[in-house]
Amino acid sequence: MSSKIFVDACLGKETPYTPVWMMRQAGRYLPEYMAVRAEAGDFLNLCHNPEKACEVTLQPVDIVGVDAAILFSDILVIPDEMGMDLSFVKGEGPKFSDPIETEADIDRLIGGEEAADKLTYVYDTIKLIREQLADDKALIGFTGAPWTLATYMIEGQGTKTYNICKKMMYANPTLLHKILAKVTEVVKYYMEKQIEAGIDVVQIFDSWAAAIEPSMYDEFSWKYMVEIADYLKSKYPHIPIIMFPKGVPAFLDQVYGNFDVFGVDWGTPMALAKEKLGDRYVLQGNMEPCRLYSKEATTSCVEGIQEIMGGKRHIFNLGHGILPDVPVEHAKHFVSECQRVSGK
Amino acid sequence: MSSKIFVDACLGKETPYTPVWMMRQAGRYLPEYMAVRAEAGDFLNLCHNPEKACEVTLQPVDIVGVDAAILFSDILVIPDEMGMDLSFVKGEGPKFSDPIETEADIDRLIGGEEAADKLTYVYDTIKLIREQLADDKALIGFTGAPWTLATYMIEGQGTKTYNICKKMMYANPTLLHKILAKVTEVVKYYMEKQIEAGIDVVQIFDSWAAAIEPSMYDEFSWKYMVEIADYLKSKYPHIPIIMFPKGVPAFLDQVYGNFDVFGVDWGTPMALAKEKLGDRYVLQGNMEPCRLYSKEATTSCVEGIQEIMGGKRHIFNLGHGILPDVPVEHAKHFVSECQRVSGK
Repeated sequence: MSSKIFVDACLGKETPYTPVWMMRQAGRYLPEYMAVRAEAGDFLNLCHNPEKACEVTLQPVDIVGVDAAILFSDILVIPDEMGMDLSFVKGEGPKFSDPIETEADIDRLIGGEEAADKLTYVYDTIKLIREQLADDKALIGFTGAPWTLATYMIEGQGTKTYNICKKMMYANPTLLHKILAKVTEVVKYYMEKQIEAGIDVVQIFDSWAAAIEPSMYDEFSWKYMVEIADYLKSKYPHIPIIMFPKGVPAFLDQVYGNFDVFGVDWGTPMALAKEKLGDRYVLQGNMEPCRLYSKEATTSCVEGIQEIMGGKRHIFNLGHGILPDVPVEHAKHFVSECQRVSGK
Repeated sequence: MSSKIFVDACLGKETPYTPVWMMRQAGRYLPEYMAVRAEAGDFLNLCHNPEKACEVTLQPVDIVGVDAAILFSDILVIPDEMGMDLSFVKGEGPKFSDPIETEADIDRLIGGEEAADKLTYVYDTIKLIREQLADDKALIGFTGAPWTLATYMIEGQGTKTYNICKKMMYANPTLLHKILAKVTEVVKYYMEKQIEAGIDVVQIFDSWAAAIEPSMYDEFSWKYMVEIADYLKSKYPHIPIIMFPKGVPAFLDQVYGNFDVFGVDWGTPMALAKEKLGDRYVLQGNMEPCRLYSKEATTSCVEGIQEIMGGKRHIFNLGHGILPDVPVEHAKHFVSECQRVSGK
């Protein structure tokens, strides 16, 4: 048995209590995070600065008491290092100045290990965290799913309708697959290098899974996530992999692949996820993050999830990222309630 | 049997072919619409102008060949006439200058029939359409669901996170229910007056249904929609009611109420909707609107839906609104393919 109960729980082993962490736990709701971010200048500077990225990664472990740290970074550093010019415009979010429109646009991007090798600041951050993180806490590394990354690379920014990438999906699927395949290759090397640098667990975030109709989700996203998982499992079978496709309750019957944990978003009832997937995968989740606005709403949800999962093959988490205006005290309450109901 | 096959289909009667319409069919993809809108000045002026609103309502019936016209208007005229100050900021969407924060804010709003009486331009538009619409075509009137309307009234604009209204949902549910109840009362009168003015069918759009976790959806949205349907059915049992809650595949097992048609969004597989609801409700939908970018993707989807529904208890539609950059020719192709596969 490993000394990290989070890793054990991911692998489906019995643990003395149910571990807990929160998506976006190193984030703007923490005054300590805001202070470091202000020192760093802007968000991208913070991602590029191993000392400061390490510091904010560790903050929620110390302040909120979660069982795992998650690497502080951004999913879009991947296309940035593939040669797309990433910037964050205040109040507008991420922008790429030259979105992908043609095959030539894809060909000019840096691919494979060469792109992954450029993400040294991420690996350096991981090594620093590893030195400072307590032995009983796990470190989660992560990547965006190829589909989610591709949406930004094609739209040039966040989108409500995804109409540019969906036009490509239906009118020129070969081009979209070419982008997805190229990103998938980079992600394989990127996650391998994160593992070599010291992460304990991999999470693949498909934040925009719900933008794809259920009958097409496997073809344009899930199969690429599975390809990444297969690659990593063939080399690092002891490293647990968490898949988090947000907003796919209608896809649960089709879920397959060699990974360990299925991250359940808050729109997917935990009981449904348990019924469909609980025998095959450990389940992570899934409190609605807005319940953190109320201690009572938090407690009743944590108790409800515990009743469904019974402390078996489960990791407590939110069903999406914590929002910036949640009081820190409420985040602590969530963590302590998860510990209380699961017997810590 | 009515002379309108769309109305017959809504009521579950056999029809010679499966009728078809498209959400947002009177919209920006039509050059003829853009011309009228330019004459009107802006979007809200167009809503307030019965002659021009009538003209754009009728356009898709003539140009694209759908079986039903849907009243051209906006869901937000309701809170506007309740006394909130609505404006549309170019490129940013709708804004209310003074969002609801307190009980006093709710109390100062105009309620019930008094608010509904102020929407005369809507009823005048309906009367004009009625005079000009062919006898075999149906006219759909509509409203936003109280929840969807409340999100704008509370946030003051569109939102990605709904964090202000969800904070209210979890921390002050009584206040949210007070807003929802007040909006529900206005909507009852509003839809009654639309019926009296001449609409054939009611559709209730809950565009932001997916913002509520499945276990809370009934309490904060569905029950209010059912209350509106009950009220209308008690007075106008012959008027079909279509419920369209967008993005609720995980809620299908809990759907109840006295209405006729369930609008299936594109994220909910038609086969799943048929299995769960097909015996009790006629199903409308559900092609992914982005499939309109490709004639081939359109045809294969229309054929797939026809195979599932078999031309019974079904209305063809998109699973959400048509996007502005779809070629008109592709919209016509969708309509003609629906007619072809269903034997018109």
